[in-house]
Amino acid sequence: MTYEPITEEPREDETRVQFVMRQVAEHIGRQGLKVGDQLPSETSFAEMLSVSRPVVREAFGALGALNMIEIANGRRPRVSAIDGSVLSVSMGHAIRTDQISIQEVWETRRCLETETIALAAVRRSDEEAARITEIAAAMASAEPGSSELMTLDIALHKAIATASRNTLMAQIIGSFAPMLESSVPAAWDTITTKERHAVMLVRHAALADRIRARDADGARQAMDDHFDRSVGARLTAR
Amino acid sequence: MTYEPITEEPREDETRVQFVMRQVAEHIGRQGLKVGDQLPSETSFAEMLSVSRPVVREAFGALGALNMIEIANGRRPRVSAIDGSVLSVSMGHAIRTDQISIQEVWETRRCLETETIALAAVRRSDEEAARITEIAAAMASAEPGSSELMTLDIALHKAIATASRNTLMAQIIGSFAPMLESSVPAAWDTITTKERHAVMLVRHAALADRIRARDADGARQAMDDHFDRSVGARLTAR
Repeated sequence: MTYEPITEEPREDETRVQFVMRQVAEHIGRQGLKVGDQLPSETSFAEMLSVSRPVVREAFGALGALNMIEIANGRRPRVSAIDGSVLSVSMGHAIRTDQISIQEVWETRRCLETETIALAAVRRSDEEAARITEIAAAMASAEPGSSELMTLDIALHKAIATASRNTLMAQIIGSFAPMLESSVPAAWDTITTKERHAVMLVRHAALADRIRARDADGARQAMDDHFDRSVGARLTAR
Repeated sequence: MTYEPITEEPREDETRVQFVMRQVAEHIGRQGLKVGDQLPSETSFAEMLSVSRPVVREAFGALGALNMIEIANGRRPRVSAIDGSVLSVSMGHAIRTDQISIQEVWETRRCLETETIALAAVRRSDEEAARITEIAAAMASAEPGSSELMTLDIALHKAIATASRNTLMAQIIGSFAPMLESSVPAAWDTITTKERHAVMLVRHAALADRIRARDADGARQAMDDHFDRSVGARLTAR
């Protein structure tokens, strides 16, 4: 397959690699390519844009790092499905280098999760409501302090985000997951008494209950309480 | 400068390039490097990790694309300051390939901006409050439909996000800017009557006013109204 040459020149503020990256992104838009669709080869882009193959290879590599295209050795690249990994890696870096704080991440998570649960209460399918209820019930049966409990906790928040039908918010929330995997066990660790463990379970059951009831305001309030008392308390205590 | 060799092996789920990317990120964390600090050279990492230089070069390129390091030809890379560009590029791609909708972006923006304005009302410095008030006042003097008005509109939202002191939320909001630059003029374009223009100005003045008054709830409500009526109305009308 041959393509029309693109006569546009790199802008003054971009390198040749950035120029190729932008042209590949624009090609995807222009051709209406969707996830899984094949892109022209390195050689085709090099010809179309009158640049060398190493420049295209570098641009492909960068687009791969940004999770926009998927590159398998020797095959033509394909359009990638987004996931939270790019934001996750970028956020991890910002935290490690003190550009953003853990407190800021929690504020952001709270903001987004109180909204996604309200949307989930309105938009969830019956299957989703049942699944969320099931996870909350499984949490009640799980051994206090077990890794199973942590896994279920994370799965509950994820199922709620998915049921919101807002992929962008779900992706952003999902990108916090690697951080959660290290901080959720610590949060549950601070729950030393039976009474406090029971309260945590009631809070999680309340999230599921308000979604099942299609009660957006109640769901939002339940998530806000959850952050306030269980999560917030721990952050303050640090 | 020489570094200790790292004996860790790539994980089964990562390529050699991904392994080097992770090791560079961990090196930054371990050494407590901050924005602007220099990283070891390509050769040093190749020796430390027992990989070839082209592998390190590719990993550096990918980390550059993710805006984690800055690479200048022939010089050692430095730790980069994050900005919203990575999320912005990734979001643009997701929109172009129908993975997320404009409606989802607006929902996310509304969620974050109603929160950042509440935080701004509490945390803003007097200078920030004065600056925000000044922008709102300049909007009132700007020619209806002028590009100056659009620029001020975007600047107002940006100043509010900055005053929230939550860099992560400000970055995410900032990453919507390229999309705003194309959609804000269209939003103002739909304001055809003098009366409606005046109402828009009053709404923006209310945002500034509630921040100046340190009224978090009022500020949140004013932003919610702003999204509801001006922005929401337009989206519905499409």
